[in-house]
Amino acid sequence: MNYRTLHTDRVHYGWDLAIEPAMRAEPGESIRFQIIDASGGQITAESDVSVFEGYDSGRVNPVTGPVHVEGAEPGDALRVTIESFEPSGWGWTALIPGFGLLADQFPDPLLHISRYDSDFIDFVDGVRVPVRPFPGTLGVAPAAAGRHSVIPPRRVGGNMDVRDIVRGAVVTLPVEVPGALFSIGDTHAAQGDGEVCGTAVESPIGVSLRLDLIKDAAPPTPTILAPPTARLAPTGPTFITTGIADDLMTAARDATRHMIDHITDEYGLPPELAYCLCSIAADLRISELVDAPNWVVTMHLPTGIFT
Amino acid sequence: MNYRTLHTDRVHYGWDLAIEPAMRAEPGESIRFQIIDASGGQITAESDVSVFEGYDSGRVNPVTGPVHVEGAEPGDALRVTIESFEPSGWGWTALIPGFGLLADQFPDPLLHISRYDSDFIDFVDGVRVPVRPFPGTLGVAPAAAGRHSVIPPRRVGGNMDVRDIVRGAVVTLPVEVPGALFSIGDTHAAQGDGEVCGTAVESPIGVSLRLDLIKDAAPPTPTILAPPTARLAPTGPTFITTGIADDLMTAARDATRHMIDHITDEYGLPPELAYCLCSIAADLRISELVDAPNWVVTMHLPTGIFT
Repeated sequence: MNYRTLHTDRVHYGWDLAIEPAMRAEPGESIRFQIIDASGGQITAESDVSVFEGYDSGRVNPVTGPVHVEGAEPGDALRVTIESFEPSGWGWTALIPGFGLLADQFPDPLLHISRYDSDFIDFVDGVRVPVRPFPGTLGVAPAAAGRHSVIPPRRVGGNMDVRDIVRGAVVTLPVEVPGALFSIGDTHAAQGDGEVCGTAVESPIGVSLRLDLIKDAAPPTPTILAPPTARLAPTGPTFITTGIADDLMTAARDATRHMIDHITDEYGLPPELAYCLCSIAADLRISELVDAPNWVVTMHLPTGIFT
Repeated sequence: MNYRTLHTDRVHYGWDLAIEPAMRAEPGESIRFQIIDASGGQITAESDVSVFEGYDSGRVNPVTGPVHVEGAEPGDALRVTIESFEPSGWGWTALIPGFGLLADQFPDPLLHISRYDSDFIDFVDGVRVPVRPFPGTLGVAPAAAGRHSVIPPRRVGGNMDVRDIVRGAVVTLPVEVPGALFSIGDTHAAQGDGEVCGTAVESPIGVSLRLDLIKDAAPPTPTILAPPTARLAPTGPTFITTGIADDLMTAARDATRHMIDHITDEYGLPPELAYCLCSIAADLRISELVDAPNWVVTMHLPTGIFT
């Protein structure tokens, strides 16, 4: 197809309805987005951890856009169909001080570069993680005036990091401003549910998608229709740790700590890389949140990634 | 195999190291447990909602046991291998006032009886949920003296409702008292991650399992090694709702409310049955909990259950 392309010179930082549209599109049009990685290009395939000296957090998580969709009005639904990806073949995973679920236990920065082909990410020797590209961030401009940080996800989408937004997925976003003002970024080559260390396999990946408009059909928050292929069938047993606590966040932290210990003990990875591996390949699920006063959060690690 | 059987006359209510063992077993022995449903037999396949008038909450969630495992000492790991199930073919799902994730929005009791064969639960006309039996509750006695409610899960396991504990799964529990004192109950014919309405397809199901002892190998909380078959491959797209909030519990509630609305709008189920369906067939996952200040909890509904 002959897509129009939005290049990476049209990135912006933060959501703001006052940002001039980078493109105007008709409903039903497919568009190709160039996506810069979540460091805004500060990290390259040749970077090492020294990149975090003088790291400019103001350039973090850029999104490409916004696209003004003709006829979109507050209360409409913007339907985004993910058509294809153009992966770059490299990505980074980092521990950034002060950021991530266990930031208190991992105070030092780490940068880990991975290469990947169409099927697998070579994380470290003996660990191959299936490639599952998706955009961590996609959304529309909020109605409230002013600049809103791109880091937290919002009612209108944004940095949701829902790893089911794979090729063929359909994301439905609630439009809050005329033209919707759709943007996308933060592409990941793989991520587990939770993205526990705060980063996935952060990778520049081109995204082609179609934008459709459904009048007066805004969902309360985004929904996703994911194809059966969104979750790979496990090729081996799944190892599961539990966190059992009267607070879901504590339970999630416990399940993650237990998994890091397991990976360290069983496979010999240093704790920092085990933590990164949890972030890119293991899934946080809520097993129960009704048996008061204690809830169970589980972390699920597919053992097939260990070769 | 010639298993010894623990019958349902050996149920107990609550965890207590002072409860006399119902059986003494050698490590490596397989045992067959008769399991009474989570109402303690108060609900039958012929019951209706009037059963909750005069419902005895003291008889809720009985467990069969305890089994004293010879040689088990505090600090050991008790390894439980689930060998097979004997399903009864019927189960119940209920809204019990004051119980469940959305108890405030569903104040009235409801009882729903389902029949199932070896493959599917006939939930209502047009909704068939795959059968995936597992024990909601299994654990060992805590070290602290006295009677501990069986409702909340604990460090030693108990009412964890981890739906991956299917046939072939291996659960590793931390032993806290001599003999471990293992018990099991609360069998479910199917459940989603979260068990949001507080009940699954509660069903009397016999469980055969093997108990092994690993010295000095207690995990901090239970772990599970689940076979690749624990999660069924979806037969159709998965519909996903989001909850986006600065608190995981609020996000989980929002994702669940949005899914109930979706099921009601799309498939015409009354909200009460939609809520029950979320509990038995939809999964709560934590998509991200690092993009401060907002976290994303997603609920995943396999659309293949709608026939």
